[in-house]
Amino acid sequence: MLTAEDNRLLTQSDAGTPMGELIRRFWVPVLLSEEIPEPDGPPKKITVLGEELLAFRDSKGRVGIIDQYCPHRGANLWLGRNEECGIRCVYHGWKFDVTGQCTDMPTSYPDLNAKDKMRIKAYPAREWGGMVWAYMGPAEAIPELPHLELALVPESHRFVSKKWQDCNWVQALEGSIDTAHFTYTHLVFDKAEGEDLDVDKHLVMPIQRMTGNLTRWIAKDPRPVIRVEPHAAGLVVGGGRVTETDDLYWRIAQFLMPFHSYTPSALPGQTIFGQTFVPSIDTNCWIYCYAWNPDRPLTVEERHSYANGGAIFPEIDESYVPLRNKTNNYMIDRRAQRTSSYMGIKGLSEQDAAVQDGQGPIVDRTREHLGPTDLGIMRFRKLVMDSARDLQAGIAPPAAAAHEAYAVRSGACITHSSKSLSEVMIERFGDASGLVGTKAAAE
Amino acid sequence: MLTAEDNRLLTQSDAGTPMGELIRRFWVPVLLSEEIPEPDGPPKKITVLGEELLAFRDSKGRVGIIDQYCPHRGANLWLGRNEECGIRCVYHGWKFDVTGQCTDMPTSYPDLNAKDKMRIKAYPAREWGGMVWAYMGPAEAIPELPHLELALVPESHRFVSKKWQDCNWVQALEGSIDTAHFTYTHLVFDKAEGEDLDVDKHLVMPIQRMTGNLTRWIAKDPRPVIRVEPHAAGLVVGGGRVTETDDLYWRIAQFLMPFHSYTPSALPGQTIFGQTFVPSIDTNCWIYCYAWNPDRPLTVEERHSYANGGAIFPEIDESYVPLRNKTNNYMIDRRAQRTSSYMGIKGLSEQDAAVQDGQGPIVDRTREHLGPTDLGIMRFRKLVMDSARDLQAGIAPPAAAAHEAYAVRSGACITHSSKSLSEVMIERFGDASGLVGTKAAAE
Amino acid sequence: MLTAEDNRLLTQSDAGTPMGELIRRFWVPVLLSEEIPEPDGPPKKITVLGEELLAFRDSKGRVGIIDQYCPHRGANLWLGRNEECGIRCVYHGWKFDVTGQCTDMPTSYPDLNAKDKMRIKAYPAREWGGMVWAYMGPAEAIPELPHLELALVPESHRFVSKKWQDCNWVQALEGSIDTAHFTYTHLVFDKAEGEDLDVDKHLVMPIQRMTGNLTRWIAKDPRPVIRVEPHAAGLVVGGGRVTETDDLYWRIAQFLMPFHSYTPSALPGQTIFGQTFVPSIDTNCWIYCYAWNPDRPLTVEERHSYANGGAIFPEIDESYVPLRNKTNNYMIDRRAQRTSSYMGIKGLSEQDAAVQDGQGPIVDRTREHLGPTDLGIMRFRKLVMDSARDLQAGIAPPAAAAHEAYAVRSGACITHSSKSLSEVMIERFGDASGLVGTKAAAE
Repeated sequence: MLTAEDNRLLTQSDAGTPMGELIRRFWVPVLLSEEIPEPDGPPKKITVLGEELLAFRDSKGRVGIIDQYCPHRGANLWLGRNEECGIRCVYHGWKFDVTGQCTDMPTSYPDLNAKDKMRIKAYPAREWGGMVWAYMGPAEAIPELPHLELALVPESHRFVSKKWQDCNWVQALEGSIDTAHFTYTHLVFDKAEGEDLDVDKHLVMPIQRMTGNLTRWIAKDPRPVIRVEPHAAGLVVGGGRVTETDDLYWRIAQFLMPFHSYTPSALPGQTIFGQTFVPSIDTNCWIYCYAWNPDRPLTVEERHSYANGGAIFPEIDESYVPLRNKTNNYMIDRRAQRTSSYMGIKGLSEQDAAVQDGQGPIVDRTREHLGPTDLGIMRFRKLVMDSARDLQAGIAPPAAAAHEAYAVRSGACITHSSKSLSEVMIERFGDASGLVGTKAAAE
Repeated sequence: MLTAEDNRLLTQSDAGTPMGELIRRFWVPVLLSEEIPEPDGPPKKITVLGEELLAFRDSKGRVGIIDQYCPHRGANLWLGRNEECGIRCVYHGWKFDVTGQCTDMPTSYPDLNAKDKMRIKAYPAREWGGMVWAYMGPAEAIPELPHLELALVPESHRFVSKKWQDCNWVQALEGSIDTAHFTYTHLVFDKAEGEDLDVDKHLVMPIQRMTGNLTRWIAKDPRPVIRVEPHAAGLVVGGGRVTETDDLYWRIAQFLMPFHSYTPSALPGQTIFGQTFVPSIDTNCWIYCYAWNPDRPLTVEERHSYANGGAIFPEIDESYVPLRNKTNNYMIDRRAQRTSSYMGIKGLSEQDAAVQDGQGPIVDRTREHLGPTDLGIMRFRKLVMDSARDLQAGIAPPAAAAHEAYAVRSGACITHSSKSLSEVMIERFGDASGLVGTKAAAE
Repeated sequence: MLTAEDNRLLTQSDAGTPMGELIRRFWVPVLLSEEIPEPDGPPKKITVLGEELLAFRDSKGRVGIIDQYCPHRGANLWLGRNEECGIRCVYHGWKFDVTGQCTDMPTSYPDLNAKDKMRIKAYPAREWGGMVWAYMGPAEAIPELPHLELALVPESHRFVSKKWQDCNWVQALEGSIDTAHFTYTHLVFDKAEGEDLDVDKHLVMPIQRMTGNLTRWIAKDPRPVIRVEPHAAGLVVGGGRVTETDDLYWRIAQFLMPFHSYTPSALPGQTIFGQTFVPSIDTNCWIYCYAWNPDRPLTVEERHSYANGGAIFPEIDESYVPLRNKTNNYMIDRRAQRTSSYMGIKGLSEQDAAVQDGQGPIVDRTREHLGPTDLGIMRFRKLVMDSARDLQAGIAPPAAAAHEAYAVRSGACITHSSKSLSEVMIERFGDASGLVGTKAAAE
């Protein structure tokens, strides 16, 4: 439970807000590279952390993230012509390059050099892991790009997309590091209508070898023990479920400052999934969704699946808006809810979105009742809120400078219940933080 | 005319407002029984008096009216699975019964009995007259259900529906007890375009025996004498129109605290109509519309008519939203307005809605000019505003305790103009308040 | 650049605001005559300067501009029956004539003469130049109608329409007197995709004799010298572009208080175009668009063109809303933007609307950077803001009384660069203000 004031601190990210300023100390994904594919192609309006910006790729392939409005008379540069290394405003022809520098000001006398003195807001932009990242903080504090393994592996090893979500970024992220909710939100059953649900009898197991056991353990233990360990880039959040032996089935997520998280399901060798939760305005967000396999290229079948609603990815339209969304109640099927799943909603991503959007545009955390399974969420909140307050007091977030500490993995393993989370991490990843360093990049 | 302050007092009904608190001392229809027809069926979101609630029917057929949000992390219980005597949240499996009691909390240690201490907002609910009623006031003040005759007669004798309206409940109710407006809003003519309207020549009379005279009297007297008499449950509001003799044609409505009204048209033996105006948020409301005949079952033809826009009922879609509504200007037909009716809008219900919505979301009563025909409205306002103020001063509304006083009827009669309204009531109903007691229920 | 406070002064026009009060000292077009074509036809809701009004044409063809709400109980008079010289409210039959006088009050006792004492807000209305004009200011200050030449010529010589726009009226008007923007917003090219734009090579010239040169001069000089001269009704705003000789190509617009402007393109004998920018609410406006030829009737072909998106007129639907508008991004064609025009949007009117709407509902003038080509805009702002402040200090706007000073023309000419704007005006129009007096009306 938070006070109303703390809930605002946690969820507001416009410029000048404590959390907004914290996020601005990190690189922020602002769109996919594929959204501005070719040089001199159409620019794209983006709203990030409450700021109305314009993204474009210039004649040389460079990406610009600039103010959306011309400084002359406020015309929208989205209408602009992307040409010859800049966006030209179609009102009076002022032109700006990717750095925000005015390179032509036809309405002014050339000998005044007025254009040289004119510069608009522009954020440093980089392409990294299939996404365009912007740095929206103070120039003197610009960090290196975070070494997300996704971006370190060859392009063939990853798949990157995004999805629109109708709620504040924080509650969506909280869902992603909450390894307990899988028991109810995502499982699949097969029973008759009217029949009482019996997990032993009705649970549908995936066909994969061994996964059956895992699914049963998830279904039968709604109260995983939660352990959290901090590291330089964020938090390891592990949830251990009981098995038929003295082993625990650990599912371990990663939270990486300020808004990345990795899902806990991967067994060694399996593809890893992650999400980055980027506020648009405070009541909605873009969630960048990605998969990568450190060991091998993704197959055509995997890519096809991810592009069509498989794994953590939703079915989306050409604007990256999920087909099953708030406006159509996620196409909830009440009959399916009595026979096939707790929710009656198709798709893991859509199930998450329904729950998270359903909390309201910004969930009222003054009314909540957290318990032991919410420990990861409590620790996440404490970390980002403390960091936001520290920044107000002049202390920059250490994680922003720790770009190498981002090269971590999340995943699952089965091991003896006597082990601490750090011991489990070392057993699973060879490192208490799950750090794999730049190994993958060496391929 | 009201002050702006009084207009707010009259029209605002969220929790904590004086009128909202007054209404909360009475049973409130919150949906139709048919909206949650079967045990364990889909729950339904409802917004009543500004509160977001969830209605569901459990495995045993009991109705629950509970908070719409799970107290754990704020997930929307509308997504929930209605099963085995409760709604289970699909985020982490917390389950609640119709009383708001948490009956399962899978994320908590069973031996802590945390679930036993967890209870969410839940309002006592009853099914009565085809509607689900909730009591949203203080527990110690809970009254008995009001003895509306509609609910006392056998189900075969009644028809119950509801309709959405795009304005504050008060102005809709004011229209319903305003027996003067029939002269302009509802009459039917048959004249050529361009011809001046001549009521004697152009009025279309219903075919029924005697009704022709009644309609002519309504058409020819736009200034009925209004008389109002208070009784234990509310007000009798009579409007008497001149006839060709010394008789007056009385049409007598009932207002029953805090938001019910009965239409004035029924002659002895005829079916009676009523409406209950329930605020959703302050700028719209659900109007429960019903018909009952104390003496006989309604016929198949009558039911078919009521379900398809006959009498006081609109044509509605599957969500109880009128087909002719604010978004399509009630399909006003300007040609029909020159030939067939003052309004050019089809349907008595739709005519009322057009006028009432047209006043704006909340009519500005600081600008109005009331006259003698508005006496019923003035008395209604005084009664509910005085009662709301009394409640703020600690005086509970007597009508809430007077459930038997609700067994009244409205209706019409023709009698000598020298009689007082009470005398007319006694002549018509055998009682000055129109009280019929539980006679009907004895059938 | 303006302060935020001055930007509000400039752009807000509700009753009681300084600019709103200034505009109310002038006649205001509130709809087209063709919108209420026949006596006793459907009334029309209009929102002008933030006021909700009703326009109707009575049985005698007179136009009424009255309050939209009945003073009795606030019913919307738009629902009313337009009959026998007045609008009759369909709630209780009160009736009002075009002067706002209540002419029937059926709910009141006839001998009280209550109706005679009841009068609602009604503004004097006139039909003038195909538009219905209202005067919304204090009665004692009512001026004569402005002698716009459009209204003085025979009906056969003019074409009048209107269009909806999704932005504040001021930024739309500023676009209209900004003769510099033509160079980028409106020119047509023909080049291959990927090819660098070369005006000499790619400019598409209109076929008309001589116009080719004009277009080239516009294309090649984005920095016209701007000269402004005040006159009794407003401002002459001239923009002179260099030619291949010592001559300047002058394009001279007119701004007429408080919200009219004429386009600068007409050569002697050519049809003149004008626009009047009327606030609906502060974030949108109706723009009355018109063409007139002082010397001859407009041809069938011209009328057809204007009605279908030619010249300054957009393609509109039956509600006068442009087909290419904000909701569909003006159907911008990014390929056309690389080959045919800077904007890739079809239609001069639509190009203007895209730029003006794109500035936002009300452009933030605290962020702008005006330069020499914006002189006309600066002088326009100063004139209307000074006038608004003067009126607050008790000084009425002189232009309101100067109705004969409105009989001016705008237009273009080519003449020696040594001449002052006044000399150019005298050469082109025979008068430094462009005044043609009532010459045209004499035809």
